[in-house]
Amino acid sequence: MKTDAGVHSHHISQQFNIELEEIKGSMLEMGGLVEKQLADALSALINADSELGRTVREHDDAVNDMELTIDDACSRVIARRQPAASDLRLVMGIIKAINDLERIGDEAAKIAKLAVALADEGDSSKGYFEVRHIGERVRHMVNMALDAFARYDAEAALTVAKEDVNVDMEYSSAMREMITYMIEDPRSISRVMNIIWALRSLERAGDHAKNIAEHVVYMVMGTDVRHAGLSSMEKQVKSELGSNNS
Amino acid sequence: MKTDAGVHSHHISQQFNIELEEIKGSMLEMGGLVEKQLADALSALINADSELGRTVREHDDAVNDMELTIDDACSRVIARRQPAASDLRLVMGIIKAINDLERIGDEAAKIAKLAVALADEGDSSKGYFEVRHIGERVRHMVNMALDAFARYDAEAALTVAKEDVNVDMEYSSAMREMITYMIEDPRSISRVMNIIWALRSLERAGDHAKNIAEHVVYMVMGTDVRHAGLSSMEKQVKSELGSNNS
Repeated sequence: MKTDAGVHSHHISQQFNIELEEIKGSMLEMGGLVEKQLADALSALINADSELGRTVREHDDAVNDMELTIDDACSRVIARRQPAASDLRLVMGIIKAINDLERIGDEAAKIAKLAVALADEGDSSKGYFEVRHIGERVRHMVNMALDAFARYDAEAALTVAKEDVNVDMEYSSAMREMITYMIEDPRSISRVMNIIWALRSLERAGDHAKNIAEHVVYMVMGTDVRHAGLSSMEKQVKSELGSNNS
Repeated sequence: MKTDAGVHSHHISQQFNIELEEIKGSMLEMGGLVEKQLADALSALINADSELGRTVREHDDAVNDMELTIDDACSRVIARRQPAASDLRLVMGIIKAINDLERIGDEAAKIAKLAVALADEGDSSKGYFEVRHIGERVRHMVNMALDAFARYDAEAALTVAKEDVNVDMEYSSAMREMITYMIEDPRSISRVMNIIWALRSLERAGDHAKNIAEHVVYMVMGTDVRHAGLSSMEKQVKSELGSNNS
């Protein structure tokens, strides 16, 4: 009897692990699509490619659909499998991460809309350097955050949070630059405002990548590091790594 | 034996209901604090009250702490009570609503920061009418959304989603107004940019109130109406109300 029950529960837990890994796989797939949306939106803006801008806006629906599907799968797995401890943390981490991914997708769609507006207004490359540069850094943050999630890597997650501080500083400096442009050439105000909104969207996308990194730390360590500040997050991650190595 | 088990499970389910109601109560309490933060931030901005602005920024920590506490309570209730069906939808609805509330709190803190900056820059009331007007509407949206949550009222939630469309239109019109101000008086650019960020924060807060309204519809009806568009949400709510009345 005992062996039977053991085999049975082993079988259930194996099936459960497969389900969890499938959901995690869907989340990473959604992440891949969001990364592509962000890359395409930036390329549409910088190359004044309104065709590509429109494509990105159309694909936003697919991102939204993925959020709903994965969210539903998570609710079903909670109701049916009653996960606890680290399994439950994984499911909660996925529920939160897909919300942040959906918002990064939203920001990509906004950048794509601005790309179309800017392409229609004709050429001027004021602020493009800043968009490209900050855009690259944010894309890298999103990529690192997804990678940290895939590998349950709290140290990589910490790197993402640190990078967010740099992106925020560059954003502030770019914003001052844009305001100077507008003051020097008031005829450029409408156009520069579009660049300002694009920079703002990138800064927000970076925040969401940082959120995903915080969900990774929660998943791996069971500690909620949101709102705790970077130094507290660093202390947490380092102490955990230290205790694992000792 | 059967009666005992019945009494026992009745007892458990009663205890469980009390726990759920307690968590919901905490969420509504958090909502009350966020409403106050938004009201105070707007009043700090319009009355150039930098003291009040600083108080709002300090209280943002309390909002963040509440999010973490309630989130943790939700995870614990899932692990211990294994809720299903409408109970699980309530817990998931709370987890999502507190995330939106925290972000409304963030926007309030941003408005408070802008209030301090604007108070330091000295007087000019350009854009204050728009901030006050849109601010009132968004505060009302947040209040209605929390009320709809408290009463599981999908029809009231629908009203919030409809109001978001109006707020978005007023936001776009105010934004065009601000750009016109800047073009007419380039010396006002820095100052008007602060008003623009405040308007943007209000528009975002309205979006989050709409999100909370969507969580209410999900909780009450079990249908996820996010990303579905207003008319589809309306159809869903009306058909449900129709079938209840028939």
